[in-house]
Amino acid sequence: MFEQNQARNLSMVMDFYELTMSNGYFRDGVQNVRVAFDVFYRRNPDKGGFAIFAGLEQVIDYISHLHFTDEDIDFLRQQKLFSEEFLSYLRAFRFTGSIYALPEGSVMYPNTPILTVVAPLMEAQLVETAILLEINHQSLIATKANRIVRAAEGRIVSDFGARRAHNIDSAVYGARASYIGGVHSTATVLAGQMFDIPVSGTMAHSWVMYYENEYTAFQKYALSYPDNCTLLVDTYDVLESGVKNAIRVAKEILQPMGKRLKGIRIDSGDLAYLSKRARAMLDENGMEDCKIVASNSLDEFTISSLLAQGAKIDIFGVGERLITARSEPVFGAVYKLAAVEENGRFNPRIKISENVEKITNPGLKRLWRVYDQSGKSIADLLSLWDEPAPASGSSYIDPVHPWRERKFENCTFENMLQPVFQSGILVYQSPSVREIRAYVQHQLKNQVWEEEQRFENPHLHYVDMTPALYELRARMLRMERE
Amino acid sequence: MFEQNQARNLSMVMDFYELTMSNGYFRDGVQNVRVAFDVFYRRNPDKGGFAIFAGLEQVIDYISHLHFTDEDIDFLRQQKLFSEEFLSYLRAFRFTGSIYALPEGSVMYPNTPILTVVAPLMEAQLVETAILLEINHQSLIATKANRIVRAAEGRIVSDFGARRAHNIDSAVYGARASYIGGVHSTATVLAGQMFDIPVSGTMAHSWVMYYENEYTAFQKYALSYPDNCTLLVDTYDVLESGVKNAIRVAKEILQPMGKRLKGIRIDSGDLAYLSKRARAMLDENGMEDCKIVASNSLDEFTISSLLAQGAKIDIFGVGERLITARSEPVFGAVYKLAAVEENGRFNPRIKISENVEKITNPGLKRLWRVYDQSGKSIADLLSLWDEPAPASGSSYIDPVHPWRERKFENCTFENMLQPVFQSGILVYQSPSVREIRAYVQHQLKNQVWEEEQRFENPHLHYVDMTPALYELRARMLRMERE
Repeated sequence: MFEQNQARNLSMVMDFYELTMSNGYFRDGVQNVRVAFDVFYRRNPDKGGFAIFAGLEQVIDYISHLHFTDEDIDFLRQQKLFSEEFLSYLRAFRFTGSIYALPEGSVMYPNTPILTVVAPLMEAQLVETAILLEINHQSLIATKANRIVRAAEGRIVSDFGARRAHNIDSAVYGARASYIGGVHSTATVLAGQMFDIPVSGTMAHSWVMYYENEYTAFQKYALSYPDNCTLLVDTYDVLESGVKNAIRVAKEILQPMGKRLKGIRIDSGDLAYLSKRARAMLDENGMEDCKIVASNSLDEFTISSLLAQGAKIDIFGVGERLITARSEPVFGAVYKLAAVEENGRFNPRIKISENVEKITNPGLKRLWRVYDQSGKSIADLLSLWDEPAPASGSSYIDPVHPWRERKFENCTFENMLQPVFQSGILVYQSPSVREIRAYVQHQLKNQVWEEEQRFENPHLHYVDMTPALYELRARMLRMERE
Repeated sequence: MFEQNQARNLSMVMDFYELTMSNGYFRDGVQNVRVAFDVFYRRNPDKGGFAIFAGLEQVIDYISHLHFTDEDIDFLRQQKLFSEEFLSYLRAFRFTGSIYALPEGSVMYPNTPILTVVAPLMEAQLVETAILLEINHQSLIATKANRIVRAAEGRIVSDFGARRAHNIDSAVYGARASYIGGVHSTATVLAGQMFDIPVSGTMAHSWVMYYENEYTAFQKYALSYPDNCTLLVDTYDVLESGVKNAIRVAKEILQPMGKRLKGIRIDSGDLAYLSKRARAMLDENGMEDCKIVASNSLDEFTISSLLAQGAKIDIFGVGERLITARSEPVFGAVYKLAAVEENGRFNPRIKISENVEKITNPGLKRLWRVYDQSGKSIADLLSLWDEPAPASGSSYIDPVHPWRERKFENCTFENMLQPVFQSGILVYQSPSVREIRAYVQHQLKNQVWEEEQRFENPHLHYVDMTPALYELRARMLRMERE
């Protein structure tokens, strides 16, 4: 694999407060106390029923290469806030902690730990920003891409978003996340090269504008790519000029060579109307196999609407609204202290807040996914780390409706957080991007209820707790309130 | 300066169609015909009166280092679409064209060229995606940051956005663009290091949660940073616990050392109410100099509302809504063919569209900014490249209201597009990021009408044309329609 990140110094990708806190912990002599931080998020984007966990491979790259150079240390020294002892410590810094995470591509739900860091306090603090940034970005785009792919109902979706991405990484890792979410290809060449994703692309309006007329432009393109010819038909007039010239080129240039016109692309105007009229014109000319590609500010909402109108579109090129997740461009995963090791055991911590939804789940925890006999995922279950594995027939508590005790009969329980690093050693083998994409599709086909996959008022996945965790949380809330 | 990009191979950051078109041009033998492409955008974000041009320095870095490695060529060969002659040409590729652009930090307006590439067809095509991506991202964030800074009415604004950025470049170059737009500092350490931007940061909730109680946490922090102590007061209860403990630490720890508490930060709850109550508590304790920092999903709208409610906030920490430009996360600059050199002269090209606002301005053009005697910018003016410089007293045409002839009396005209590359040679010295930021402030203070700077229904800047350009456009539209 093409390892672009190895050439980059990502150690300084952090909020400055990670350093002021770390220097403070160092001064207080507590930098090596072991703690646990949970990454979790509070709300599914776009009022969806779930999200998709992505970005773990880049978290692994970052952690694996994390170190501070002399140049970094010099920059920090210039801030005149840090002790020389702390700076020496940073110079020798390596991550020695443990990380547990969902497998990349996992379906995930709000208020459950999706990644847990167990590490010396200072190490756990320093990695916060980069972990959040990578998980937030790729999970945002994978989730959005998956919504768009579901809206397309089996039709092909391609990522065209690079030019509107929030800089280069956003285009490249956004393409990776889009592919994980289910798009079929990307236009971004570097993403294809780095992640072995299929790349696709044909022509811009400039090709058509360069030549003296549209017919000549199409003819030249057909001669360059007789086996793979898709023509952009909206530079002048889709129906009066573009589709007619495309049909002419198919008949006059391609068919005599024994070739077929692969597709036409419409990038402006009323895509429902134009695609239906274009389809009829193509079919009348015996070109039923010519695909219609549509682009122009598409997302899951416009695609659903186009299909409801009977638009004749085979392939959707999706750009700015995918690569920026325009309808909701923030994925708000957070990184919260859950436990501190004191006298050999992890004691829980909780964050109270004026905003009730910001209260955290205390303690070092495990996340279990509960499957019924048909293999459907019917709930997630949080337990304390030391509790025995959950069992069919035991009682659990829904923290939103605590009076409603829940028993899972004849169920299986999957331990979702997998070891990724143990005492600084990488113990997880990242699957390929294609394998991650296949895992997403497997879950959606076999495990996730259809009712969680719809766009309007999806079923909200149950997230239950063991009685021990529920009691701990209630007790800590009472204590803090007093 | 810390040159991170030099280590990165950005040549493959492009849409695949740039390559399919280039290979086609190469096959047709027209790859070296000189053409002109304009970058322009169609609409100001958030219904604003203008936008800010940013990202030029990164465009220069990209163009300067643009080349294809053997590894790149091998990847392209595997696509089985490109001729060996084309691949050999790519292997030796360097950019030999010319680029003209607004100085970075320029105020800009829709439907005016902000960057023009004059280059052999294939070269001009290959650089499209990366130029758009860089200009779109940084202009988006610089424009958004400037809106937020204007809403803060002189108060300090700091970028806290890294963790919600669309990957690493989005955090780092977003911080650069935010600083250009007017924020005072960033929390993103790497951006501070790369661009010499002030960095700031204090503590997270985890600091407070780590220690056995809030008072101890504050005490430890004050002892670490007696000269620079800002305490986060909302981990448990802002007024009942946080502010009281902050005051206690100021009195018991800092004041005996001859130090003052620099600030408190509120990150949740009703910021208007809490800041007023906290201000009163601080003032009652003789701490009028203690600043109140507020954060939590702020943007220009929430800041304006807080100030209208009389919130007592001195410093705004702005995160996700700045770094993702959440209210409108797409900056839609496009790259359109404007002219093709034929027999020694540049002949204009135009793109018609089903969407009227997508029709382009043809020809190789100049952009002039028109200033009145007081130095205020009263209009922009487009001319054809070969026309004489505009002069006071001549008549120009408003293309939106063509019956309304406009004369500029006693005006000066600034030629806005500056040479950046000429025949492949870099001829432009990028100012420092601080200088670019100062240029933004200079324009807004001295040149841009206040009426263009307001948020609600701003005055729309006039963009006029010379009669020659207007006639050319009208003639080409008539021709294409026939």
